[in-house]
Amino acid sequence: MRIVIVGGVAGGMSAAARARRLSESAEIIVLERGQHPSFANCGLPYYVGGEIEDKSKLLVQTPQSLRASLNLDVRIGHNVTAIDSETKTVTAHTADGPVVISYDALILAPGARALTLPIPGIDSPRVTTLRTVDDAVALREQVTSQIGSAGQDANDAHAVVIGAGFIGLEAAEALALAGYKVSAIERAPHVLPPAEVEVASQVRLELERLGMDVYEDAEITSITNGGSNSDVVNLGTGETIPAHIIVLSAGVTPDTDFLDGSGVELDNRAIVADAHGRTSVQGIWAVGDATVQTDKVTGARRPVMLAGPANRAGRLVADDILNPDAAREIPATLGTAIVRVGELTAAMTGANSRSLTAAGVAFHTLHLHPNNHAGYFPGATGLHLTVHVREDDGLLLGAQIVGNEGADKRIDVLATAIRAGLTAPELIDLDLAYAPPYGSAKDPVNFAGMVAENVLTDQLALWYPHEYLSFGDDVLVLDVRTAAEWATGHLPTAHHVPHTELRDRLAEVSELAQGRRIRVTCQSGVRSYIAHRILTEAGFDSASLSGGMITYKAIMGIDDLVTGN
Amino acid sequence: MRIVIVGGVAGGMSAAARARRLSESAEIIVLERGQHPSFANCGLPYYVGGEIEDKSKLLVQTPQSLRASLNLDVRIGHNVTAIDSETKTVTAHTADGPVVISYDALILAPGARALTLPIPGIDSPRVTTLRTVDDAVALREQVTSQIGSAGQDANDAHAVVIGAGFIGLEAAEALALAGYKVSAIERAPHVLPPAEVEVASQVRLELERLGMDVYEDAEITSITNGGSNSDVVNLGTGETIPAHIIVLSAGVTPDTDFLDGSGVELDNRAIVADAHGRTSVQGIWAVGDATVQTDKVTGARRPVMLAGPANRAGRLVADDILNPDAAREIPATLGTAIVRVGELTAAMTGANSRSLTAAGVAFHTLHLHPNNHAGYFPGATGLHLTVHVREDDGLLLGAQIVGNEGADKRIDVLATAIRAGLTAPELIDLDLAYAPPYGSAKDPVNFAGMVAENVLTDQLALWYPHEYLSFGDDVLVLDVRTAAEWATGHLPTAHHVPHTELRDRLAEVSELAQGRRIRVTCQSGVRSYIAHRILTEAGFDSASLSGGMITYKAIMGIDDLVTGN
Repeated sequence: MRIVIVGGVAGGMSAAARARRLSESAEIIVLERGQHPSFANCGLPYYVGGEIEDKSKLLVQTPQSLRASLNLDVRIGHNVTAIDSETKTVTAHTADGPVVISYDALILAPGARALTLPIPGIDSPRVTTLRTVDDAVALREQVTSQIGSAGQDANDAHAVVIGAGFIGLEAAEALALAGYKVSAIERAPHVLPPAEVEVASQVRLELERLGMDVYEDAEITSITNGGSNSDVVNLGTGETIPAHIIVLSAGVTPDTDFLDGSGVELDNRAIVADAHGRTSVQGIWAVGDATVQTDKVTGARRPVMLAGPANRAGRLVADDILNPDAAREIPATLGTAIVRVGELTAAMTGANSRSLTAAGVAFHTLHLHPNNHAGYFPGATGLHLTVHVREDDGLLLGAQIVGNEGADKRIDVLATAIRAGLTAPELIDLDLAYAPPYGSAKDPVNFAGMVAENVLTDQLALWYPHEYLSFGDDVLVLDVRTAAEWATGHLPTAHHVPHTELRDRLAEVSELAQGRRIRVTCQSGVRSYIAHRILTEAGFDSASLSGGMITYKAIMGIDDLVTGN
Repeated sequence: MRIVIVGGVAGGMSAAARARRLSESAEIIVLERGQHPSFANCGLPYYVGGEIEDKSKLLVQTPQSLRASLNLDVRIGHNVTAIDSETKTVTAHTADGPVVISYDALILAPGARALTLPIPGIDSPRVTTLRTVDDAVALREQVTSQIGSAGQDANDAHAVVIGAGFIGLEAAEALALAGYKVSAIERAPHVLPPAEVEVASQVRLELERLGMDVYEDAEITSITNGGSNSDVVNLGTGETIPAHIIVLSAGVTPDTDFLDGSGVELDNRAIVADAHGRTSVQGIWAVGDATVQTDKVTGARRPVMLAGPANRAGRLVADDILNPDAAREIPATLGTAIVRVGELTAAMTGANSRSLTAAGVAFHTLHLHPNNHAGYFPGATGLHLTVHVREDDGLLLGAQIVGNEGADKRIDVLATAIRAGLTAPELIDLDLAYAPPYGSAKDPVNFAGMVAENVLTDQLALWYPHEYLSFGDDVLVLDVRTAAEWATGHLPTAHHVPHTELRDRLAEVSELAQGRRIRVTCQSGVRSYIAHRILTEAGFDSASLSGGMITYKAIMGIDDLVTGN
């Protein structure tokens, strides 16, 4: 049995390693276009910024180490250009000319390549992508020469990052850390496009705190020459941004041109594969960024550019080839992802509100702002959770978190819950580890479950920030925070009654309401829930602002708020 | 409806707060023996050591704040001494004499009190427990006067902690941090008795690194006077330990004496309650440390002294009282727990090996030592996982982790998986958040799933450290690490063949084995798995040491190992 694998790194190398563990007798050949069959692609931005100091750290395995440990035949500098499923051969271009290699089983793991942009000047030598070790090494050398050179004022070195998704943000932070004045330009309405706006706005604030200029909803019209060693990035608004380095991270596309004519079915350039990774052609499997994957929550089918699912699929494809009767199916993906931005962590799992709306799912959204650990223990910081829950049965659909310490933990717990098919109220029952340095007796995840249960049982009715724009005279907005909090900024039409006084001032509220709906707000949504209960039991039509003023400000900004008493 | 709650803090206050949210009209009376109805009991050790600086931080709520926010009638200094379920009244002793209070629904949340020890001298004024705010304040004052006084050499101040469970370890660390020479004395075979020995041995090393003397399997025979301001703790071995402070944390027992004669059924002093918290007496519910709870994994019934389950039960009991048709059942507990010891975190969830053995469950145990995050990213440290998996169906039964950063995250993911009823192989499919600062493309939890699947499908056979003691001439022990690793310490009877040379040296191995079983070891269990596959496919009877030499040393110590080549 000869297994040929096109492309190393995550999916390909996982398949190769698993195949060897399943069979000592299989011949396993990995064809890698570049020089590095197994490198830390997620580490590249950190090498550019110098946080990872040594290039050798990026090279996880070499052809030699893979031969010694796993008896793999890794052939670098092999660029596969064609597949013939009739003769079961692949053709690869090498420095020594084309070679033809036969296979019994073929695994396609070509990955994705950077998208370019159709704008004048995008071919400037200062525009680079960050996809390979060579990209990272070249960028690091440029950084070192531009920032490290004597007499160079770091503030005079400008970098532009085009595309503020996960890799773009990591690249932007790395360049800022290295000493550049960084501009991050995002074409979508906000940075980190898959994030909810209330998460993205926190990320944007952190980018600005790191000294960056952030352009959202921004169109780049051209890149023009700005001097001997710099360009100018021109925006649709007329703004111009100098750039000694331009990193292009405006998305990727499956690297599948070599499959044209192979008979392997593609969908939007991505390889179509079944739950065992089998393509439309017998004897050919596919894994990783180049494949169409199924979204666990919405059922949507699209490529998922993540290392974890690629690794998993690689292992399962090896199972299917060598042990087909016992091989499990490749699980649908949740798209769990995380990014560090300065001192902030932003993370997401499952569906976001846009994908749920697109899929026609009816859902509740919850916003919470619990501490990462017991508030009385030093170092507690706020986490900001957005959680989506299916309306009819409470199924947990997706969650996003932005915060400092402990955000990664809660997103992993929620990802586990979604994978296991838990409803949101079942989050109440999770026995999570509590000691003051780590959490609270009621963990943020437990709290999310309680809020969900309250909403699903009509114990709690929520209203959302954008609704405020359409409130007319038929709504009484009640702010139940303390006077000091109220003074820091409140909704223009709000009335102020602290929640601790509400029971005694119900007659006054009734007078104010005159039969109108009451929409309550506090800082985070906890006290407005208490107030909502008081009002509801007193017969008012009441609702509590989801996530309180913290969420309101994160979504709507602070421009319209009124300060003072 | 008048709801009377005996005891505040976790379970009682959760019930009270939830009851108010469910009903504005209910009269809710909380009877608290002490002065503090809602204090941070898990924070007490950190206040003693000064890590929490301000006493006010420990007081989460006051009777006044609870009245203002939730309209609760909190009566401090009310020590309930009797219950009459016929007249539906409780009698409480107060400073002003006894009072009788009637109830419609009664919630018992009395908690637990410290066990004392039947040894001479235990009544010394220097022996204190750490259960209340007053305990903590008194201890902190003692610490301040003994350590803070001018001319006092901190090394001359000795503290003894009796009982090295969770609270004992936190108290010991706090006292060491404050400047004491601390001795921790544990009667069980190792510190942190619920931990597996391989976890406990790491905790012991950390305690010693913090400068403590640790006595395990130790019997205290008496406490005698050692001078004007110190005692001497005398051990069964004849050793004597000076002590200016002695903290007694040798366990707790349900504080239920007041229930004698009430008709409320007790089991080993703990209140028996059904899945809705209902006791044997109609109209009386019970929650928290004083109740018998059901273990989710083994079904064992015993009190669980944890804040999380108490909070949860409190909320559900309020549901059952005010909304009985919709109230969910109190979930069985996993006993998830965590403790910080110096730079180490030790955490556990689900069943441990002793409780599984006691319950007659057939299980596999896995040991893994993955990094907390990508090894190429700065600051990666090792996590040590022990995972128990049911033999017949792979159900995840329990897990323990010791390590630094990221241990808390993985225990919470595993606790979620156990709660959801996942099998261990299903851990492979968890989409956990990966970026280099947070994890790896294959998270430690995913790895645990892979090892479990390999074991369950007979792809991997494991052997365990204690088996080595009974190996005779019928076993060939093969160590497949590098020569440098081998030289740091290997099993006395082992032969050395690096895994990278094994394929080429199979004839030599066959010669050595002479038909005998081969038991392989490496450092962590990864390379010995590769070697095991090579040997198995070559026809040998092979098995791989679970967790490799790291686990071996943690369980068996290093005394018998041979160093050098």
